[in-house]
Amino acid sequence: MPDNVHIKYLLNEDEMPRTWYNIMADLPKPPPAVLHPGTHQPVGPDDLAPLFPMALIMQEVSTEPYIEIPEPVRQVYNQWRPTPLFRARRLEKALDTPARIYYKYEGVSPVGSHKPNTAVAQAFYNQQEGVKKLSTETGAGQWGSALAMAGAFFGIDVEIFMVKISYQQKPYRRSIMQAYGATVHASPTNLTDAGRSILAQDPENMGSLGIAISEAVEVAAKSGGTTKYSLGSVLNHVLLHQTIIGEEALLQMEKAGDYPDVVIGCVGGGSNFSGLAFPFVGQMLRKGLKTRFLAAEPMACPSLTKGIYAYDFGDTVGMTPLVKMHTLGHDFMPPGIHAGGLRYHGMAPVVSLLHEEGIIDAQAYHQNAVFEASVLFARSEGIIPAPEAGHAVRAVVDEALKAKESGKEQVILFNLSGHGHFDMAAYDAYFAGKLQDFEYPAEAVAAAQQRMPQVV
Amino acid sequence: MPDNVHIKYLLNEDEMPRTWYNIMADLPKPPPAVLHPGTHQPVGPDDLAPLFPMALIMQEVSTEPYIEIPEPVRQVYNQWRPTPLFRARRLEKALDTPARIYYKYEGVSPVGSHKPNTAVAQAFYNQQEGVKKLSTETGAGQWGSALAMAGAFFGIDVEIFMVKISYQQKPYRRSIMQAYGATVHASPTNLTDAGRSILAQDPENMGSLGIAISEAVEVAAKSGGTTKYSLGSVLNHVLLHQTIIGEEALLQMEKAGDYPDVVIGCVGGGSNFSGLAFPFVGQMLRKGLKTRFLAAEPMACPSLTKGIYAYDFGDTVGMTPLVKMHTLGHDFMPPGIHAGGLRYHGMAPVVSLLHEEGIIDAQAYHQNAVFEASVLFARSEGIIPAPEAGHAVRAVVDEALKAKESGKEQVILFNLSGHGHFDMAAYDAYFAGKLQDFEYPAEAVAAAQQRMPQVV
Repeated sequence: MPDNVHIKYLLNEDEMPRTWYNIMADLPKPPPAVLHPGTHQPVGPDDLAPLFPMALIMQEVSTEPYIEIPEPVRQVYNQWRPTPLFRARRLEKALDTPARIYYKYEGVSPVGSHKPNTAVAQAFYNQQEGVKKLSTETGAGQWGSALAMAGAFFGIDVEIFMVKISYQQKPYRRSIMQAYGATVHASPTNLTDAGRSILAQDPENMGSLGIAISEAVEVAAKSGGTTKYSLGSVLNHVLLHQTIIGEEALLQMEKAGDYPDVVIGCVGGGSNFSGLAFPFVGQMLRKGLKTRFLAAEPMACPSLTKGIYAYDFGDTVGMTPLVKMHTLGHDFMPPGIHAGGLRYHGMAPVVSLLHEEGIIDAQAYHQNAVFEASVLFARSEGIIPAPEAGHAVRAVVDEALKAKESGKEQVILFNLSGHGHFDMAAYDAYFAGKLQDFEYPAEAVAAAQQRMPQVV
Repeated sequence: MPDNVHIKYLLNEDEMPRTWYNIMADLPKPPPAVLHPGTHQPVGPDDLAPLFPMALIMQEVSTEPYIEIPEPVRQVYNQWRPTPLFRARRLEKALDTPARIYYKYEGVSPVGSHKPNTAVAQAFYNQQEGVKKLSTETGAGQWGSALAMAGAFFGIDVEIFMVKISYQQKPYRRSIMQAYGATVHASPTNLTDAGRSILAQDPENMGSLGIAISEAVEVAAKSGGTTKYSLGSVLNHVLLHQTIIGEEALLQMEKAGDYPDVVIGCVGGGSNFSGLAFPFVGQMLRKGLKTRFLAAEPMACPSLTKGIYAYDFGDTVGMTPLVKMHTLGHDFMPPGIHAGGLRYHGMAPVVSLLHEEGIIDAQAYHQNAVFEASVLFARSEGIIPAPEAGHAVRAVVDEALKAKESGKEQVILFNLSGHGHFDMAAYDAYFAGKLQDFEYPAEAVAAAQQRMPQVV
């Protein structure tokens, strides 16, 4: 029987944080420069101007610790934010653990994930600078649907290159983007040089996030300024916008009278993890509050646990600037796991730096273990996790079981970044015993890493 | 550009209503008796005991104006309740209307609809009386997934008869029920006499809500007391549990400093409409606060606007007690519209009575008009309405446009009972121009009404 006293910690509207937290101000050492893909020289704001509005470029390089959230962005946030922080009492009981498990639930946004936190901000800044159209990529569709919605709110056309395999396997994610008025292509397309070059080598190519990024970047770069490019993860300004999650969670944990021993999130490009974790990392770096940070990634695409820390392209074709990050090689093609949002060869540079500095731990998980934990979570807490977020759930369950063994009253906080209502086919496959646990594709990664740019 | 100041009206946890509102206390005249299907004599509590726990039977006939929500039910509600009340400022702007549009959003529940409000209560009362298993029917799957979740919370097995056409067309709704641990059958099955009798006449029968009810009732009736039956709409106690919506909305409208001129909801069996409207009907009946109530139904299954007010069965085969309601005939098979939750031949007896008394208006809508309004809503407010709730959205848009014509500052309140994340195929069909606008099936209804029981 439920015994759920004090399961929810809300904030009033007037308690919603008015600033994003910029971890660049507190990093133990400065992040490596971003390099021009041709010259390998550091890029400046002007190099990025064809792709991004200047306000976002300035955020990308800012070292101000707090950056104000513009009023029109806060107004849109306010529809579903502050998001709830839950104590997972029924899950704790199901696990019979002394751990206290808290989760921040981002699935309450209209598209069911954390992605609008940056989509709304990016649409706003672009609109402010007169941009009429944004191009972007999407894998499983979480990001594309968020930007499509934000575009509708701010009167900006949105053109989306969706990884072809997802376009075919997840038609409803495409539908939701179209419902918001966006144009959606199955990538690789024959609309761009990047797409045509891929199709020339392999007409049956089913696409990847890296290829879709190449196409979207090309559309913006060749638009003569009418179209800008928008990215849903990896970049500093994207991670910055997501810190609203952790800034809220800091206040909510205070209301709960608790503080996390461990903060957990899943990582693909790194944005939902960073959004929750960075404000707590900041507390540790500035105030010495000791916390463990655990990034949960898929065994099929384990950039933090198996990637090398080196300069690489953000896209497959090699059009983006070079960033230093954990990477499996820019043209590595991850196996087709259901957590499409985690199928990215690289990792946010700042997450990579913090992992390199020993501040962030990482652990890779197999699909079946992820879904096993997600089903337990659904039956206890009611919310069906998206397969991406399920990686965090798996990590949480493991931590809670360890706490049970050791008898330790560990406080666990994690980001339930989205619901799985669009991913029930994956649950079906799990129940039918048809989910494949892909081993780490060591040879393919090694080969891809051979093809990385040599930066001296 | 968004201009959304004061778009959200929340309640704190301690402001959540502690009682359901029972409209039976305030009806202008007593509702007609429920009759035994064989004898046509009024049924008593004992007649219903094989199907329902006594606590729910007592609620079914109670005339107490307020009924306390048990603490364990409030604890579960508290995960997502109080639900937000939104002012639809961006929609108002898109329509350029002087109307002030408010909506109560029930899609924040873990299954994305209002259905858990009664599912959780029913699971609780059954668990209190030692029931180990519940049988139920579901059409589009909203109700089945809610009861499956509630069963998981309270340790009750749930067996669901899902209309076969939906089982095949909406596999992900089936998946979500299975994820919560429920057993799901495609109805008609060969597991029950009711199902076998239907299949004997028509082996290709694709099912209906009425047939699925027959099967679920039979499972409970023949279980020897181990299994009870659970219904997701129509009955008094179901509508009662849904009044948490309107009780919250009363407080939230007060916070907004406004009061509705018109309250709108979609109707299938009538529960989400009643949940929002009844507390406002109560204000009108008791305090004379003048409000219009508008029930939005599908043209393909227009029980309030075209049904007759008469005694009929709640199911297709004729196993349930007879209730006086607006009905299209218990074996009428509605055309296959996408709003599966509205494909029911009858209407809640209390909603029917209030319609008969002139307190509730009704209007029927075609599918394409519903989706046109829903797309406008999605692009303005971000939330993609479920096709059922889209009927309410259509009614709201029409009212707001009328207000624009007349220049009247009308205050509109409606129930956005669920999100459409499971219904994107319907949006696809709309965009592809493939949605059929079924005319009112007058002949089929007339024939079905001929086959209704003759109560003298």
